[in-house]
Amino acid sequence: MNPWLEALWYILPAYFANSSPVVFKGRTPIDFGKNFIDNKRILGDGKTWRGFFGGLTVGVLISLIQYHLIPSYYGSPYFALKLGFALSFGALLGDLIGSFIKRRANFPRGYPAIGLDQWGFLIVAMILAYPIKTIETKQVLFLLVVTPFVHWLANVFAYKVGWKSVPW
Amino acid sequence: MNPWLEALWYILPAYFANSSPVVFKGRTPIDFGKNFIDNKRILGDGKTWRGFFGGLTVGVLISLIQYHLIPSYYGSPYFALKLGFALSFGALLGDLIGSFIKRRANFPRGYPAIGLDQWGFLIVAMILAYPIKTIETKQVLFLLVVTPFVHWLANVFAYKVGWKSVPW
Repeated sequence: MNPWLEALWYILPAYFANSSPVVFKGRTPIDFGKNFIDNKRILGDGKTWRGFFGGLTVGVLISLIQYHLIPSYYGSPYFALKLGFALSFGALLGDLIGSFIKRRANFPRGYPAIGLDQWGFLIVAMILAYPIKTIETKQVLFLLVVTPFVHWLANVFAYKVGWKSVPW
Repeated sequence: MNPWLEALWYILPAYFANSSPVVFKGRTPIDFGKNFIDNKRILGDGKTWRGFFGGLTVGVLISLIQYHLIPSYYGSPYFALKLGFALSFGALLGDLIGSFIKRRANFPRGYPAIGLDQWGFLIVAMILAYPIKTIETKQVLFLLVVTPFVHWLANVFAYKVGWKSVPW
């Protein structure tokens, strides 16, 4: 496979895990409405258990669909599941870390942090997936460049179809 | 060399190029005070020619000092100069791209963009240096994790010694 296409194929579960919580919405926040030691919300109402598990499920399902389409890339459904889980969990964890940082910096819910929103989930996904399967340096750099554009396109799309109230 | 230390040794010129413009200050802005097609400043008064060339000079000097300390890492002063230039130029270019994006998003001069400020210069530096000398995937991921902390410490230091008026 072409190295750039392979990089996108590799990261696909993370992209889907990161973008799908907006569809699931949900009510119970992951931080259960609790504040951190600075008396500000730990994560905020934007991060829900339903969104988290919805994102995780979609990400893992994507990896199984990928296995079905090109079995040789993952080698086995078990490996697809393992890598898909690591990438999806990493993407969601990266997003939660981002929310945690934004709450500390007094950003209101849904307010964008340029850079953190586009790279945070990607970096944590690549780190958690690293022990299972990794990509080359040039592919990592490629994903760091294209992900902000993919992220922006996905958000504009989610806004246009009415899943999000703001286009970021 | 330990792979984590090697990663920091590799990126050192970029760190210095990124942090030194604040010392040089300067008056003539790189965009010569001109506006972009959106009628907002292209880069803003915070980016000066003096800061740019000061940062470039410091970054390249650091690579020559590194060559002096551990000659085997670069192999030749010419190679040190080439890699130091690519890393420094990349760090400064990444920072300018960041300012360009911040101006488009209506961020006032000096206002932080969490993520963009810490990762933008690093990513462009690694991309421009890639054809000359690169590091492994795990080292790239390591630098992506530690650079925000290094960046934050450097800014707090610059604020404490009076080089910057804000601690970010």
